[in-house]
Amino acid sequence: MEKNLCCILDGTKNLRFEERPVPKPKSNQLLVRIHTVGICGSDVHFWEEGRIGHFVVEAPLILGHECCGTVAGIGESVKGFKIGDRVAIEVGLGCRECEFCKKGKYNLCVESTFYGTPPTDGALCRYVVHDSDFCFKLPDNVSWEDGSFLEPLSVAVYSCKRAGVTFGQKVLITGAGPIGLITLLTVKAAGISKVVVTDIIDCRLEMAQELGADFTLNVKDLSPTESAEKIANMLGCKPDITLECTGAGSCIETGLLVTATKSGGLLMLTGLGKPRTELPVIEAALREIDIRGVLRYENCYPTALEMVASGAIKLDKLTRAHYKLEQAAEAFERFLKGDVVKVFIHCDDKP
Amino acid sequence: MEKNLCCILDGTKNLRFEERPVPKPKSNQLLVRIHTVGICGSDVHFWEEGRIGHFVVEAPLILGHECCGTVAGIGESVKGFKIGDRVAIEVGLGCRECEFCKKGKYNLCVESTFYGTPPTDGALCRYVVHDSDFCFKLPDNVSWEDGSFLEPLSVAVYSCKRAGVTFGQKVLITGAGPIGLITLLTVKAAGISKVVVTDIIDCRLEMAQELGADFTLNVKDLSPTESAEKIANMLGCKPDITLECTGAGSCIETGLLVTATKSGGLLMLTGLGKPRTELPVIEAALREIDIRGVLRYENCYPTALEMVASGAIKLDKLTRAHYKLEQAAEAFERFLKGDVVKVFIHCDDKP
Amino acid sequence: MEKNLCCILDGTKNLRFEERPVPKPKSNQLLVRIHTVGICGSDVHFWEEGRIGHFVVEAPLILGHECCGTVAGIGESVKGFKIGDRVAIEVGLGCRECEFCKKGKYNLCVESTFYGTPPTDGALCRYVVHDSDFCFKLPDNVSWEDGSFLEPLSVAVYSCKRAGVTFGQKVLITGAGPIGLITLLTVKAAGISKVVVTDIIDCRLEMAQELGADFTLNVKDLSPTESAEKIANMLGCKPDITLECTGAGSCIETGLLVTATKSGGLLMLTGLGKPRTELPVIEAALREIDIRGVLRYENCYPTALEMVASGAIKLDKLTRAHYKLEQAAEAFERFLKGDVVKVFIHCDDKP
Amino acid sequence: MEKNLCCILDGTKNLRFEERPVPKPKSNQLLVRIHTVGICGSDVHFWEEGRIGHFVVEAPLILGHECCGTVAGIGESVKGFKIGDRVAIEVGLGCRECEFCKKGKYNLCVESTFYGTPPTDGALCRYVVHDSDFCFKLPDNVSWEDGSFLEPLSVAVYSCKRAGVTFGQKVLITGAGPIGLITLLTVKAAGISKVVVTDIIDCRLEMAQELGADFTLNVKDLSPTESAEKIANMLGCKPDITLECTGAGSCIETGLLVTATKSGGLLMLTGLGKPRTELPVIEAALREIDIRGVLRYENCYPTALEMVASGAIKLDKLTRAHYKLEQAAEAFERFLKGDVVKVFIHCDDKP
Repeated sequence: MEKNLCCILDGTKNLRFEERPVPKPKSNQLLVRIHTVGICGSDVHFWEEGRIGHFVVEAPLILGHECCGTVAGIGESVKGFKIGDRVAIEVGLGCRECEFCKKGKYNLCVESTFYGTPPTDGALCRYVVHDSDFCFKLPDNVSWEDGSFLEPLSVAVYSCKRAGVTFGQKVLITGAGPIGLITLLTVKAAGISKVVVTDIIDCRLEMAQELGADFTLNVKDLSPTESAEKIANMLGCKPDITLECTGAGSCIETGLLVTATKSGGLLMLTGLGKPRTELPVIEAALREIDIRGVLRYENCYPTALEMVASGAIKLDKLTRAHYKLEQAAEAFERFLKGDVVKVFIHCDDKP
Repeated sequence: MEKNLCCILDGTKNLRFEERPVPKPKSNQLLVRIHTVGICGSDVHFWEEGRIGHFVVEAPLILGHECCGTVAGIGESVKGFKIGDRVAIEVGLGCRECEFCKKGKYNLCVESTFYGTPPTDGALCRYVVHDSDFCFKLPDNVSWEDGSFLEPLSVAVYSCKRAGVTFGQKVLITGAGPIGLITLLTVKAAGISKVVVTDIIDCRLEMAQELGADFTLNVKDLSPTESAEKIANMLGCKPDITLECTGAGSCIETGLLVTATKSGGLLMLTGLGKPRTELPVIEAALREIDIRGVLRYENCYPTALEMVASGAIKLDKLTRAHYKLEQAAEAFERFLKGDVVKVFIHCDDKP
Repeated sequence: MEKNLCCILDGTKNLRFEERPVPKPKSNQLLVRIHTVGICGSDVHFWEEGRIGHFVVEAPLILGHECCGTVAGIGESVKGFKIGDRVAIEVGLGCRECEFCKKGKYNLCVESTFYGTPPTDGALCRYVVHDSDFCFKLPDNVSWEDGSFLEPLSVAVYSCKRAGVTFGQKVLITGAGPIGLITLLTVKAAGISKVVVTDIIDCRLEMAQELGADFTLNVKDLSPTESAEKIANMLGCKPDITLECTGAGSCIETGLLVTATKSGGLLMLTGLGKPRTELPVIEAALREIDIRGVLRYENCYPTALEMVASGAIKLDKLTRAHYKLEQAAEAFERFLKGDVVKVFIHCDDKP
Repeated sequence: MEKNLCCILDGTKNLRFEERPVPKPKSNQLLVRIHTVGICGSDVHFWEEGRIGHFVVEAPLILGHECCGTVAGIGESVKGFKIGDRVAIEVGLGCRECEFCKKGKYNLCVESTFYGTPPTDGALCRYVVHDSDFCFKLPDNVSWEDGSFLEPLSVAVYSCKRAGVTFGQKVLITGAGPIGLITLLTVKAAGISKVVVTDIIDCRLEMAQELGADFTLNVKDLSPTESAEKIANMLGCKPDITLECTGAGSCIETGLLVTATKSGGLLMLTGLGKPRTELPVIEAALREIDIRGVLRYENCYPTALEMVASGAIKLDKLTRAHYKLEQAAEAFERFLKGDVVKVFIHCDDKP
């Protein structure tokens, strides 16, 4: 059988290649020949810094968690799959036995594993094995790239679900990076008639506009109060829900988040990065603005897939660049350039 | 000042006209010159039968509750309105003091009043007075007819909200009459990617298709089990939510409602009419399918208006016929023909 | 090693005994030496009728699902248990891979198994093996009988949770059989200050009174309207929640269930038995009384155990009778007498 | 008619008395002869500092909002009251017309008024008029002091409701001041089997123990991590819900709040005081701990009254001191001593 070419992070910014044996699926698993992997900010963070919070890369690690591929082997007790099926992989697995897993909150399982997060290897390789109930068959009209996008889309779906995003509301999204933009697509598909997107970089806001933002606002030189006022004017009132998507590197004035939100509304922290970000929690409390966050997602791949397959969410306008597995280093460098929304690595040498 | 021409139901199928004084708004009220009134099945029912359930027409009554018009007078303590404003009227008012009203559930208030429901007069006249906080200003891009449609649309919005309709679900709507069709528009605007509409009349299903139904099914000659199977095949699984919109006159086999719905799902009774309809409640209970209903709506006009004003819901394809106030009798007869989705009566002799 | 004495239902009302091999726990399982099994109405139903709905006893079957025992063997990957631990067994297991299981709703899993329900054997034997995450260690202050009571108590906990029972509400429980009484204990422990229990047998109502019912009502000779009025007078208003616990055999006038409940309230069907029970669903819908049911329970054993272990729920006053495994037939006959709330069979010949 | 003796705050720590006319109830109002007023920390804050946040005492003001009294006059349209009825007064009123009021969230109404908060006068006087639907009749077994306690009890009821406190959970309450203690009583009445109360003063923790705390912990010399560990050991796991009740003056290490709470749990900010308190919101977000707050309460007086009237909550052990209206200054000084949980001022010279 073919060898399993793996791209391994072995020290800061050091990606090397190694051939490993093709893994054998357990009884409940599929062997998947990886086709496409999207590069995420967290992959790049591990590559550049060797750690995210208390997750430290202490041994050689395969990165990559936005992935899909082709079924190449099937465990004996698996039902419903056949060799050649195209599948997206939901890469986070819980222990299936703890309090959280039994309630469906497997993302909170303290023993959960997640591709490309130490010490669990990811998908930048030819083959992986994965539990079959966390593999989702892709219909023909869902491309490989769409299949990889299901991962960040699941983050957006989950944060919208936890935020209670539903038709007829008005929504503010802060940040027009990849998560902000995919969240925008989700929010519009959810029937939100008026959405404002803020950022501090104009070209990102232009992309937001193109993807359906009803209004955009560059908040670079505005105080939180000024921004909040402009946002309320655009929407006709303060937003019911604010979805924070600026991520770790942002210079957003966090005061905006609470100030801008309607009393009795909700602030969802999807991307906020600094460990002790100062939020005006008392103002939030006294205006009964709930503050929530998300850890990845649970049970969202089916919804994400349904929305893409049905055309409710169209990902085509998200700009992208393509590399082969062997060009992984170039792909990571390209990510840093920031000129496309998504960089893809194609691990399968067949199309 | 002008007289207030009123169309009065005075005995079965007897509409007569009478001039009454123009009412004077109380401190918190607006005087509204009615422009357009949509005729609803319940109006026709009162006209034909003189009663609906325990609501009996015992004295001459003005019908009409889907209405909008022009502000023609303003109570002294009212703020935010000026003469000439175009407004939709939410015609159900609670006592504002009981347990239900204080919690926002004014539709459940036992002392609530509702236009055109005995003994409260409706809008088929030139002028009404109404509490200003239950009048909603119409932007220029919302037509008079749209303004009247906000009433049945509020029913649809409310039932979708109480049903928890949200993006990514699969939905079954039973019945393609006016409420079923408007519910369809709402469900699609809420980001539901796959909707099946059932009915027993093909031309209604064609209208549903035109309005965006992903699938339609004529259930006339099918058993509940056969229908449920076909629906599941269309959607790829049983629907998460079934919205019952067949209304009183339907010959639907109610067994379908529970059988078709996914375990853990929800069955919303929006239109079911017979007082002791036999539903398989035990099957529903054992598959944890919640059964809910709605009494009109509460706090839904703003959402309905937002969805129409923003273009999220387009009502243009709903077929319609037009009559003057003086032609009310003809308008009611036209309703019976059933060849259009909505019959409008225009009370204002100016355009 | 010891043999595994099993009590086997082999034809209507025919219980025979057989020695089977002691089962071997799989990697994730415990071997449990059964100590105490409570007899439930459904056990008796299978014994008398050979079926419940579409569950038909087609092969010899071991009954019993309210059970606890002593850890006698431990699978290799199990953590946190040691030989001799006293455990209650949650006997319903899902497939762990389907849509329902992954969301925590394993009770809705179509492949779920449940002790004593064909074709899955139950606990009326010396030994069973069971997945360790569905075994719960009993503290010293929780007796064997309490441990068995956790099963019906989980039904009560689950129905109260799904009904949203919380402090400050007023509640009606219809039916003072075992489930009604255990539900009463749960409701009182949940801080419900005023509870009415109805039944048609006075001695059951006396038991309810002793267990903490604030009011009891014999509805035998009352119309639904009369009963509803008396209940409202007792509580000071209609109950927020009605918990239906009469079970299959009841002669309750089901009309009471909706009529008695407050508008905007909830009706929980815990025990209702006839397949096409006629409920006034339209009245329920128009007064926005939600109708819900439960299929067993999910994730409720920890709460049930916590409430017993902490003393919040005291089960001591529930009358009971005791039999050895070898006396199973007598135990089933005793159940029919109906003179005690619970009949226990002690499978372990050691105390 | 008698004069209306009023105690007026006229400059820092300056209380003077003035006779004003007895007010006349409007159509929907009651005239209430005030009997008992509890002094709250916010009253003392206005008295000492002249402001709380943006609420500034700019004109002479009557303080007092925890109040009850006797019906002494009845507006013409009021139903259900008679002269001499004992009533508790819910002192916060909304505009009854805005978006928030119509949804039942009158506490968020931007035009709401609240006794003793500038510029609205409070209850430290002989007579007030108040909307009758915000007056609640006290049964004979509810004392005047209990009637005043309904106000802080409503805060506790509301925060428990918004936090989703329900039977079977484990709860942490930080702070054993008046709000913490009353919250403790509420939580225990709600069927919470295990509650830990923390504070930094031992005698407050002793009071908590006496009122039913299952565990208490003096966190004075402990790091957040140490405290969190001790709390988890006491409860057997981290609490599902943490109710922050330390109030403005506390020296609590706020890091504890998130660290101590279970993943997927909830942190309710009832009392936190400093405007920009630094909370580790990112840790909260990533462990999906929701952060909520409350602004006073809405629709909670009936529940609070029910719980006191039924005996579910017993307020007798809360220590107290008594003063006449004419001794108001002494009463405020006594509050500062902090030796009793509640200081009452009796405005009615009759018993």
